[in-house]
Amino acid sequence: MKKKSKVVIIGAGFGGLNAAKALGKCDVKVTIIDQYNYHLFQPLLYQVATAGLSPADISVPIRQVLSDQKNCTVHMATVNDINIDANTVITDSQDIDYDYLIVATGAKHSYFGHDDWQDYAPGLKNLDDATEIRRKILSSFEQAEMTHDIEKRRQLMTFCIIGGGPTGVEMAGAIAELAKKSLAKDFKNINPSESKIILLEGGDRVLNSFPEKLSIKANKQLLKLGVEVKTNSMVVNCNEQGVVIKNEPVILCNNIIWAAGVKASSANQWLDVKGDKFGRVHVNGDLSLPNNENIYVIGDTALSVDKNGKTVPGVAPAAKQMGKYVAKAIISKILNKKPQKDFKYKNYGNLATIGRKSAVADFGKFTLSGFSAWFMWSFAHVMFLIGFRNRLSVMLNWAWHYFSFNRGARLITGKKPK
Amino acid sequence: MKKKSKVVIIGAGFGGLNAAKALGKCDVKVTIIDQYNYHLFQPLLYQVATAGLSPADISVPIRQVLSDQKNCTVHMATVNDINIDANTVITDSQDIDYDYLIVATGAKHSYFGHDDWQDYAPGLKNLDDATEIRRKILSSFEQAEMTHDIEKRRQLMTFCIIGGGPTGVEMAGAIAELAKKSLAKDFKNINPSESKIILLEGGDRVLNSFPEKLSIKANKQLLKLGVEVKTNSMVVNCNEQGVVIKNEPVILCNNIIWAAGVKASSANQWLDVKGDKFGRVHVNGDLSLPNNENIYVIGDTALSVDKNGKTVPGVAPAAKQMGKYVAKAIISKILNKKPQKDFKYKNYGNLATIGRKSAVADFGKFTLSGFSAWFMWSFAHVMFLIGFRNRLSVMLNWAWHYFSFNRGARLITGKKPK
Repeated sequence: MKKKSKVVIIGAGFGGLNAAKALGKCDVKVTIIDQYNYHLFQPLLYQVATAGLSPADISVPIRQVLSDQKNCTVHMATVNDINIDANTVITDSQDIDYDYLIVATGAKHSYFGHDDWQDYAPGLKNLDDATEIRRKILSSFEQAEMTHDIEKRRQLMTFCIIGGGPTGVEMAGAIAELAKKSLAKDFKNINPSESKIILLEGGDRVLNSFPEKLSIKANKQLLKLGVEVKTNSMVVNCNEQGVVIKNEPVILCNNIIWAAGVKASSANQWLDVKGDKFGRVHVNGDLSLPNNENIYVIGDTALSVDKNGKTVPGVAPAAKQMGKYVAKAIISKILNKKPQKDFKYKNYGNLATIGRKSAVADFGKFTLSGFSAWFMWSFAHVMFLIGFRNRLSVMLNWAWHYFSFNRGARLITGKKPK
Repeated sequence: MKKKSKVVIIGAGFGGLNAAKALGKCDVKVTIIDQYNYHLFQPLLYQVATAGLSPADISVPIRQVLSDQKNCTVHMATVNDINIDANTVITDSQDIDYDYLIVATGAKHSYFGHDDWQDYAPGLKNLDDATEIRRKILSSFEQAEMTHDIEKRRQLMTFCIIGGGPTGVEMAGAIAELAKKSLAKDFKNINPSESKIILLEGGDRVLNSFPEKLSIKANKQLLKLGVEVKTNSMVVNCNEQGVVIKNEPVILCNNIIWAAGVKASSANQWLDVKGDKFGRVHVNGDLSLPNNENIYVIGDTALSVDKNGKTVPGVAPAAKQMGKYVAKAIISKILNKKPQKDFKYKNYGNLATIGRKSAVADFGKFTLSGFSAWFMWSFAHVMFLIGFRNRLSVMLNWAWHYFSFNRGARLITGKKPK
């Protein structure tokens, strides 16, 4: 009997999980490695950070998703390296052999060479980031309530979000709603609706991956929510005082959220290849590695350029499509079938939400904004969540929030504020 | 105009929160101080620790509960001391003056003089404790799945719960269900249903505050769930290896949960009085302090003995009743009214749950066990939760769990396992 091929997947994000599922009925041994025990629905992570949803609403145990998949083993471990010559993934618990490897390790924050900013301007990538940002935001209001120092109070109630892409816009809108609606009536010494929420964008418009008219609409909707939008504002420093923009005085603020840039995970070092400036790994048309066709790189870690020179964007739908694609590619190789055509990203549209009843949507041929876009955004996000319980729970929380303005997860947990 | 009396409440648990609410319409200034921003429904905390519920399901922001109460200020701070001569509560942020003080600071774990056991045998008092125990339990299964060392694996899959009171019984039952039902199918190398769950009780029966026949029934129901119950087992050591019982070899186990004893908070030191052996403060019949009738002590912090020499038990309903009682007592004093009769605890019944469809209930005149007691337990706990959203969310999670055996919050968050 021929030995079954071993497919190892690093990362159980959108790319890795979809690859594992697509290999579900194939005659291979699949091992999926992740440092967490959960698959995270990252597009809603900002709602955990702003107390709208609970961590369990947007995540699901990887084991549970793959529970019925007999050919698949889940391995919770941190990958330290890949030994390409030995076809082995080196983790903190054991080495795992592969015949085919799928690298789907996603992206992390990039501080453009200023890694010391990270302590003052945390970003949002996993559940612990989100509950930590939640702790910091909510604690700031508690501290502001107690201080009699007007300057200090103002600093505690100023929030800077760096980066005007979809994540920055979503965070700014959500913090504005938290402060100006949910918390508004709950304090006696301060008025949370006087909080300053400042969205800083280095370029000349927010949502610059969307058509310009949607940027203008998003900008208007942000202003309506009480967000101060500062474009052409290049951040030159973040420290315990606040944010410094080029040629301007420091913006004193206690909360800085980083949504300005990401770089690919350390996979390029493991694979011993030179990444592009974002650390992404160049891949062939079939997403395999140029010098090692048994290794595939997908999702935010891959730099995939199509025939027209267009780069596949680092978004969830692209990662999912790539995951399914490489599963098929591996099966074709094992069965000695004719290879598939090169990977091609199908863009079904881009959505970004700004706040309650307000979003923008770009479907190429047409665009939407306001309530209709928001409704579509809500529907799409509930639909793409994994698990019936999560869908129900998110809908319940949204309905609750929609009608009461209250947030269901206003908890200060974890380490105490300084 | 006469100056309004200042009532300060330390602690927003069942006692403190009910006192604050009962003072809602009175012409006094109320300040409630708590180190957390949430009121916690502690009776369901074990379900957060065993991945059944999310933290936000069983807690609610104190500010939100008291949002409409115009005479009440919420102060999130840690109390360091009370200056009785100056009528001042000293917190880590500022000093707060009072005319009347209500001390409702609850209880913490008591390791009977062995505080070094705490690191190995954490107890369950707040949300961070619960998510930390959840992390440890779930991580143990992940580590067991990866190790090839049979001994190590057995140790990782052995769980000792120390203390056979309601909390210990609930924890043991919940861990048994987690291992033997929810996780059973999700691992490839281990069989979680082979986990050993051991409930250790120093006395001769579990639930010794209940009638003996209910202890026997609880014991049977625990055995049915696969819990090993060891009575007359006095713990003499807890360390990184496991638990040592007097005259027996060490029980190797990776998870020890402390449910054996509590002592009152440090309030007796602040008040400069000698507590009883559990640190509780002796109070008058009206719950005031013998030498200082403007200070009241309620809930688990108080040692209240009625005319018949019966001590009020440290349970949530007693704390609630005490909270309402002292609110009235203070108002009577302010208005120079005739004082109320001494506080008398009304016991409406004791409930303890063991697992799915199984609980015991003691109503004095009659008792219940099995499904009927469980149904009553579920109903009572949903009813007593604060907030419509929380009730709905808990019911949704329970229904989900009841029909699917899955747990909604199987997340490993927080610091990484060693």
